[in-house]
Amino acid sequence: MKADFINPFLLATKNVIETMAATKVNPGKPEVKKGKTTWGAVTGIIGMASSNVKGCMLVSFDGKTIITITNRMLSENFTELNKDVIDCVGELTNMICGGAKQKLDELGISFDMATPVTISGHNIEIHQISEGPTITIPFETDAGRFVIEANLHEKKK
Amino acid sequence: MKADFINPFLLATKNVIETMAATKVNPGKPEVKKGKTTWGAVTGIIGMASSNVKGCMLVSFDGKTIITITNRMLSENFTELNKDVIDCVGELTNMICGGAKQKLDELGISFDMATPVTISGHNIEIHQISEGPTITIPFETDAGRFVIEANLHEKKK
Repeated sequence: MKADFINPFLLATKNVIETMAATKVNPGKPEVKKGKTTWGAVTGIIGMASSNVKGCMLVSFDGKTIITITNRMLSENFTELNKDVIDCVGELTNMICGGAKQKLDELGISFDMATPVTISGHNIEIHQISEGPTITIPFETDAGRFVIEANLHEKKK
Repeated sequence: MKADFINPFLLATKNVIETMAATKVNPGKPEVKKGKTTWGAVTGIIGMASSNVKGCMLVSFDGKTIITITNRMLSENFTELNKDVIDCVGELTNMICGGAKQKLDELGISFDMATPVTISGHNIEIHQISEGPTITIPFETDAGRFVIEANLHEKKK
């Protein structure tokens, strides 16, 4: 994944969570993903595709983090990972990818977004099968931590 | 998901597994997915997107099933869900979606494919967030069972 492609995902994530959940977001250092990862309690996955590029973006939340963020978004008092919280991950996945899409479009990189999928459970290994490196970006908030993983590559001609 | 969209996924799945793993595949009856599902040991997920349609396809295997299918594809004698077996799920996901894409293209439905993701673990709940129903197609083989889940919808204009 080109360095230019990373910032749109970082900025879109910060913007969506800060706007939707009124939660200050501190992005950590983007890194190339190494090895397998055991993930957070809920993960949203969304594909990106066009005739020029293909990729996939994940956003994965600790349970406590996403419950707090959902409560702030919906003015609720949920205490567990119910359907509303999991649906919220799907919405956030769509919104973050949509924000990155808009920013990448300005750089001349266009794609359409697939339907998001949410995954919940523990000790799950998620592996993106791509031709190039996957980038991990950690985020800290007062609600807890979450992670974005993205790969986006130009197709071989 | 339109009924016309179902058969391309069913036929592509049967064709890919029968060709790649020399394993006879008996498709069951496609049904609308109801409720949550606890999945097989390994699942491949791939997004589909264009300016006209968006969707997502999953293929989920029992552990024993995918180990046997991988062994037949690669002439190996694996006995556990190792990296090669999980990579094989990614490849099969790509190939099945590619086969369906080709058949749908003949019906005038075109899209590009995103990067596939594989998920392994137990007691995982996977939920496709789409505007219409998700279709489940069960398959039986002498190697065991697996399932395809697909949603593909025309975008609202």
